[in-house]
Amino acid sequence: MGRWEPNPRERLMRAALDLFVEHGYDSTTVAEIAERAGLTKRTFFRHFADKREVLFSGQELLSRLLTDAIIGAPGSASPLDAIGAALEALSVAFGPERREWVRQRQSVVEAHTDLRERELLKSTTLTAAMADALRNRGVEDLVANLAAEIGSVAWRTAFARWVDPANEQGFAELARQTLDELRKATEALN
Amino acid sequence: MGRWEPNPRERLMRAALDLFVEHGYDSTTVAEIAERAGLTKRTFFRHFADKREVLFSGQELLSRLLTDAIIGAPGSASPLDAIGAALEALSVAFGPERREWVRQRQSVVEAHTDLRERELLKSTTLTAAMADALRNRGVEDLVANLAAEIGSVAWRTAFARWVDPANEQGFAELARQTLDELRKATEALN
Repeated sequence: MGRWEPNPRERLMRAALDLFVEHGYDSTTVAEIAERAGLTKRTFFRHFADKREVLFSGQELLSRLLTDAIIGAPGSASPLDAIGAALEALSVAFGPERREWVRQRQSVVEAHTDLRERELLKSTTLTAAMADALRNRGVEDLVANLAAEIGSVAWRTAFARWVDPANEQGFAELARQTLDELRKATEALN
Repeated sequence: MGRWEPNPRERLMRAALDLFVEHGYDSTTVAEIAERAGLTKRTFFRHFADKREVLFSGQELLSRLLTDAIIGAPGSASPLDAIGAALEALSVAFGPERREWVRQRQSVVEAHTDLRERELLKSTTLTAAMADALRNRGVEDLVANLAAEIGSVAWRTAFARWVDPANEQGFAELARQTLDELRKATEALN
């Protein structure tokens, strides 16, 4: 392979994560990431605003996947059916080839207070996006908020199972299972 | 009243909030807060670690109120009954005499990104505390998470209604109403 390898963005993401795992997030500079990827700092900044962005640039894609799936669900779909479609749509971002990267990303995020807080904000923003999409389907306000929060619990639970090294199931299957468990859990609330 | 007025903590909280509303949170210094309260900076720092703490020092009380109520609920109480008891217990912190202060605090927090993020973290921590307290009652993991999230939606909704100037109901009554609406909403999910 010559110096014009394809997909500089992927190479930067891989290089950044390797360095975060090896030397810690705080100790890693953008210059080192670019160097490890065999690219320039200028190229880095064409793709990411800063090094934190490498870990969080997927948020827009996730938001679009969730929102499109909820809006595109059949008119007959119940709020939780629409949430189920949204979670299954995430498997585009959480395919088997992404699992190792996502797993390492998660260990970097969890080891760092600021990154954990950013992750939490991301999660809240995505939950709000799901609730808005449900309201756009005509779902009543409180039901939309509730269904989106259940979707958020389902997502976090399915995600934790998916990144577990002992797991071999795909994300869509885990999301379906988890949401079914939550449907049953709603019956144990009262 | 002489210089030995009672309750310096309350005076500092009142003075700080007045200054945040008048001059903005960022422009207000601890020295100005102490001066407005007729106290010294040293007294301020005996009560609060920094000016942000004035707005968030209530978190421990809220956590204790929620947790004690869940743990102390009758053995026969369902997960949502225990959550209902927890939300009603918050009325100790959200009494009528506190409403104006809380309302102003809310406007300061909402106008400032860092404070909004801190508020979100606080909310997540309190939701996790409710889920833990439910697990301590023997509630199954996923049911506990779900009930705590429903409690969190109920709280945020009841709180928004309580600080609404058009509202005249007490917090406990609003919490009960909102949780009842959410119980009904769970039936519209599927």
